[in-house]
Amino acid sequence: MNMEELVSRIQPVDAAAAEKAQQRLDRLTKPQGSLGRLEALARWLASVTNAERLSIERPVVFTFAADHGVAAEGVSAYPQEVTAQMVLNFLAGGAAINALARQAGADVVVADFGVAADLPPAPDLIDAKIARGTANMAIGPAMSREQAVRAILKGAGIALDRKERGAGLFALGEMGIGNSTAASALTAALTGASPEEVTGRGTGIDAEGLKRKVDTVRRALAVATLAPHDPIAILAQVGGFEIAGLVGVVLAGAATRTPVVVDGFIASAAALVACRISPRAADYLTASHMSVERGHQRLMRELGLTVLFDFGMRLGEGTGAALAIPILRASCAVYNEMATFAQAGVSECSDRQVEEVKS
Amino acid sequence: MNMEELVSRIQPVDAAAAEKAQQRLDRLTKPQGSLGRLEALARWLASVTNAERLSIERPVVFTFAADHGVAAEGVSAYPQEVTAQMVLNFLAGGAAINALARQAGADVVVADFGVAADLPPAPDLIDAKIARGTANMAIGPAMSREQAVRAILKGAGIALDRKERGAGLFALGEMGIGNSTAASALTAALTGASPEEVTGRGTGIDAEGLKRKVDTVRRALAVATLAPHDPIAILAQVGGFEIAGLVGVVLAGAATRTPVVVDGFIASAAALVACRISPRAADYLTASHMSVERGHQRLMRELGLTVLFDFGMRLGEGTGAALAIPILRASCAVYNEMATFAQAGVSECSDRQVEEVKS
Repeated sequence: MNMEELVSRIQPVDAAAAEKAQQRLDRLTKPQGSLGRLEALARWLASVTNAERLSIERPVVFTFAADHGVAAEGVSAYPQEVTAQMVLNFLAGGAAINALARQAGADVVVADFGVAADLPPAPDLIDAKIARGTANMAIGPAMSREQAVRAILKGAGIALDRKERGAGLFALGEMGIGNSTAASALTAALTGASPEEVTGRGTGIDAEGLKRKVDTVRRALAVATLAPHDPIAILAQVGGFEIAGLVGVVLAGAATRTPVVVDGFIASAAALVACRISPRAADYLTASHMSVERGHQRLMRELGLTVLFDFGMRLGEGTGAALAIPILRASCAVYNEMATFAQAGVSECSDRQVEEVKS
Repeated sequence: MNMEELVSRIQPVDAAAAEKAQQRLDRLTKPQGSLGRLEALARWLASVTNAERLSIERPVVFTFAADHGVAAEGVSAYPQEVTAQMVLNFLAGGAAINALARQAGADVVVADFGVAADLPPAPDLIDAKIARGTANMAIGPAMSREQAVRAILKGAGIALDRKERGAGLFALGEMGIGNSTAASALTAALTGASPEEVTGRGTGIDAEGLKRKVDTVRRALAVATLAPHDPIAILAQVGGFEIAGLVGVVLAGAATRTPVVVDGFIASAAALVACRISPRAADYLTASHMSVERGHQRLMRELGLTVLFDFGMRLGEGTGAALAIPILRASCAVYNEMATFAQAGVSECSDRQVEEVKS
C-alpha cells in the first residue's frame, strides 16, 4: 500500500455510535455520568469500533527501536549501545514493557527500525531496518524523505498484519538512545514551541546535559528546511526511524477502526505527525500517562487529548500505554456487564429535574 | 477480639523492607526512578508485607451497606429504598463494582450493616445489621457508642476472616443513600473544616438540594457533642454503620500487615476515623481515585495520601479502589519480573554523577 491509499482509508469515527453508547450508559444502575472517565472511554471505543459489545481483544504494544545520529552530541545519559542491548532485553522478556504487557494480557511486537548494530536474527524480532541509525540532525537531515515514507509504511504494514491476526487495540512504544531529542525537535517544528519549552531530561541527564540538549535541538531546527504544512518533510529532517514507524501504526489504526493508545513524549510526537498527515486520525487516539518530559503536555494539548494518569514516569517502551489497557478493559466491563435500572428493579433518581436537564 | 486488642496488634510498617525494595528497583533495566509511582507502590507494598516477592493475591472489595436516618432531610437525589435494591443488585452481580471487581480478579464481599429493610437471606450476603438505619443525625446521635464499636468489630471480623482465607489486599467500598452527608459531617468534625468546604452533590442533587445538605450537616454538628480526641464518639454522633464497618476493615488490614486501598469520599472518611483511632494505620493505606466530592481532597490531605488518578467518578461501592488493583499488580509485575542490568547485559548510565547523587 502507498501513503495515499493508507490515508484515503481513514474515515471519521462514528458519532452516532458514541451517542448510542451514552444512552446505554444512562440506563445502567448508577447515577448518570457517575463513572466519569470510564464512560467517556466507552463512548470513544464505541465511536471507533461501532461495536454493540465493547472489547479489547488481543491488544498489541508496538515497541519499535532505532538509533539516532544526534546521540553523538552527548544528549543522553546512556551510551548508544543500550538501544541494541534493550532490544535483546525485550526479546528475552526482561524489560519493563514485557512485565507490564504480560500483566495487561498484551503482546509486545519488537521491530528494529534502525538500530546501529547488527542484531542477531530472532523469531520474535521484526527486521524493519531502514539504516544503521539516522544521520545527526544537528548537522543535516536525519533521513531522506524516501526513508521516512518507507519507515511509515513498514510500521503500518506491521500493524495491519497484526490487525488481520485479530488485534483489537494498538499501543505505541519505542526505544532509542537520543530519541527524546528527536521528539523535542519534532514538537518544536510542528507546534512552533521554542526548544526550551519542549526539551527535558529524557532518561535522566544532568543540568549541563540539558543545556547541551536544548542547544542541539536549536541547531537541528536551524539547519533544517522546515515546510510547516509538510509533516513528512519535518519527520525526515528531525525525526527518527522508530518514530516514523509509529506514525504508520497510528495511520493503520485509524484506517482499520482500531483504537490506538498513545504512550509518552516520543510516541505522542509520532501521533502528532500522523494527525498532521491525516487530522481524522486524532479521533482514533486515546492518551495514557503524562510523561515527566516537559514537551508532553504541549503535545497532549495539540492532539486534544487528556491523560488518564500522571505517575511521574519517563521510560517509554510503551509502559504508560500498557497501564491504560486494564482501564480500557474496565470501561468495557462496566458497559457490557452492568444491569440496567429496569433489569435490576432499582428506582431511578427521584429528582425528575436531573433527567430533564440531561435529556 | 475487643477494640483494644485489635489496635494493639497494629505495628509500624517496615521501613527497611521499603529501602531494600528500592535497591532492587535501582538494579532493574530502566533509568533509576523512571517508573515513578509504580516504584513508590512497590516500596509501599514491601513496607506493608515485608515479602521478597510482591503480589496481590485474592484481593477483596468490602462493599458494606447501610441506611441513614438523615436521608429524611432530603439530602439525596435517590429514595432510601435504593440501598436495599442495590444490595440485591450487588448479589446478582449487576452493579458497577461487580463488573470492575471481576475485571480486577477481586471478590466482592457484601454485608448488610444496617439496611432499613428486611433483606432476603442469601448465601453471599453477610448479615452484620446493627439496626434498620441510623437515627437522623440532624436531630441527635446517629448511633450509640456501643453500636459504633460493635460495627467496627464486625467489619474487622469480616476482614480477618477473609485474611485467613488468603486475601492479600483489602479494598474499601460502600453503599447507603445519605452516606455522603454522614461523610461530610465526619470530615468536618474530624478536621475542623466548615460544612461548605466538605459537602458536595453526592450522587447528584441540584443546587437547592446542596444548600439543604450543607444546612443539614451544620445542624448535625450543632446538636452533636464532639470530643475532638474521641474519634469513636464522633463516629457515633455523625457516622454510619457501613462507615464504622469500614473503619474495622482498615484496622484489621493494619493489624495483619495487609495493604488497604481506599475508595472515594465515604471510604476515605472511614479511613480517617481508623487513623485517628490508630495513627499507624495510615501507612497501610494507599489511595485510588480522586472523587468528585469536594471533601475528598481534604481527606486525602489529612491522610497524607496522593491519589493515583482522577476520573471524575462519584459512585462509591469500591469502584475507584477496584480500578487501582491492576495498577498495583503492574507494580508487582515490574518488581518481580524485570531483569537487572547485570542479568540482561545492559550498560548502566554513563553519567556516574547520577549514581553518586542517588547513593
